[in-house]
Amino acid sequence: MFKQVTIIGPGLLGASLVLAIRKKHLAEKIVVWARSDKSAQDALDQLPVDRVEKNPSASVEGSNFVILCTPVETINSILSSIVGELKQGCLVTDVGSVKGRVCGEASDLFKNRNACFIGSHPMAGSEKSGMAHASENLFLNRPCIITPEDEESSEQIKVLKLFWEKLGMQNIIMTPEIHDRQLSEISHLPHLISSTLAHSLSEKTDDARSMCGQGLRDTVRIAGGSPELWTGIIQQNQANVLSSLEKFQTSMEKVRSYISQNNFDGLREFLETGANFQKEINK
Amino acid sequence: MFKQVTIIGPGLLGASLVLAIRKKHLAEKIVVWARSDKSAQDALDQLPVDRVEKNPSASVEGSNFVILCTPVETINSILSSIVGELKQGCLVTDVGSVKGRVCGEASDLFKNRNACFIGSHPMAGSEKSGMAHASENLFLNRPCIITPEDEESSEQIKVLKLFWEKLGMQNIIMTPEIHDRQLSEISHLPHLISSTLAHSLSEKTDDARSMCGQGLRDTVRIAGGSPELWTGIIQQNQANVLSSLEKFQTSMEKVRSYISQNNFDGLREFLETGANFQKEINK
Repeated sequence: MFKQVTIIGPGLLGASLVLAIRKKHLAEKIVVWARSDKSAQDALDQLPVDRVEKNPSASVEGSNFVILCTPVETINSILSSIVGELKQGCLVTDVGSVKGRVCGEASDLFKNRNACFIGSHPMAGSEKSGMAHASENLFLNRPCIITPEDEESSEQIKVLKLFWEKLGMQNIIMTPEIHDRQLSEISHLPHLISSTLAHSLSEKTDDARSMCGQGLRDTVRIAGGSPELWTGIIQQNQANVLSSLEKFQTSMEKVRSYISQNNFDGLREFLETGANFQKEINK
Repeated sequence: MFKQVTIIGPGLLGASLVLAIRKKHLAEKIVVWARSDKSAQDALDQLPVDRVEKNPSASVEGSNFVILCTPVETINSILSSIVGELKQGCLVTDVGSVKGRVCGEASDLFKNRNACFIGSHPMAGSEKSGMAHASENLFLNRPCIITPEDEESSEQIKVLKLFWEKLGMQNIIMTPEIHDRQLSEISHLPHLISSTLAHSLSEKTDDARSMCGQGLRDTVRIAGGSPELWTGIIQQNQANVLSSLEKFQTSMEKVRSYISQNNFDGLREFLETGANFQKEINK
């Protein structure tokens, strides 16, 4: 599909992309950019790559497709450093969980350039991070949100869609703004709630360890995600996240008052609404 | 281990007990009590039982061991109706998720009787309920909390411990009061939080269905549990649950203010505390 692909950042997603691209034969050559000596060496030792570079500009030389897989707050500065080095017609995307700021700044940066940026958000993370947990199947049967701005060429959007499809993903197209509003509710809020639950129980670790059932374990699973990465995500989606939290707090206040006022019919209906939602999203 | 065991209520837990007791050869005969004609018929058709009764008193006749597997709010009235019919030396337990009220009332009820009640809480539920989801392996490697009052014979406690051990469970012994306080935090609170998250997203079902990742799915999994059962549990543990909710709301207020006041170092530390808890309980 591509002569040469560059993966910027061989973490969980970047390293999994290397494995999946190789498995599906989507590129003749794969170049990886890694920031530290250690991860550069690990990428060389553990991943089926052709070249590892420590300079972002050098890593994109000759590539037709570049995927940024670094934390969201680093994407725009890396884009600035590579935009002048991109090959004619190169397609650039990222895998960040927040799209508004990244796509907005990229749109200015790529104006009148011979390359094109379109944001992606393959929803295929894990609470585990790092190259060691990479899997060629990470993307299988997961949704991928593609967030083009109006100006991007529809040809390049087609290429990007085809790429994610070949990794087994279901594409959804929306604007960066709608993406961030939706993800705030269905991803960033759940992460914060899972973390808040874990935080509120953190003094009970020993009791919880011996007595906890699978329920607690599942409910706090995503709280195990990288605090560093998630701080960046919440920071970039601050306004949406605050309004999602407010909605959650309204529901919380409702259930608390049902319980404290002995309104157990109200509680049952409340739990039913939640149970129906759980069943619907698992249909 | 027992000549005859009676299982009161062939729901998920009761039916799984029938299967597990058979598999491990822990009883020569198994009698089931079912309330409705339909579940009595289902139990006869689908479970390896010797007899199904629709009258609680008749179901315990001749049994050495009786396990109540009905919703928590029904346990004491069933105990009242069977206590006079129990065989000399019969051991009675339940599988309810709240122990204070059940064990307190049972303690009065069994005073000067020739049978003995000791509460159990095998932590082996699922968001799925009903006989259809029963499994002989439901109890394997799960904790079981046994909540004796002071007066019970230590011989009977030993028998009860041995029974749950034979099903593959790890026993923990504590008073009903401590059980309810602990469970409020590590089980009832997580359930409510999962439900509240699902409730607050319930208007977004379509978006959530197409875009949700495994994270949201796991975080709201337990919200799918029976609203009926959980209303009973929360009602019986009202005071503890309200105080657990208050602790959660303190954590919630903390994270909200970190985000709204741009204190992203505070946010990162908060997320780290949660992530550490998640890792600890999975050690």
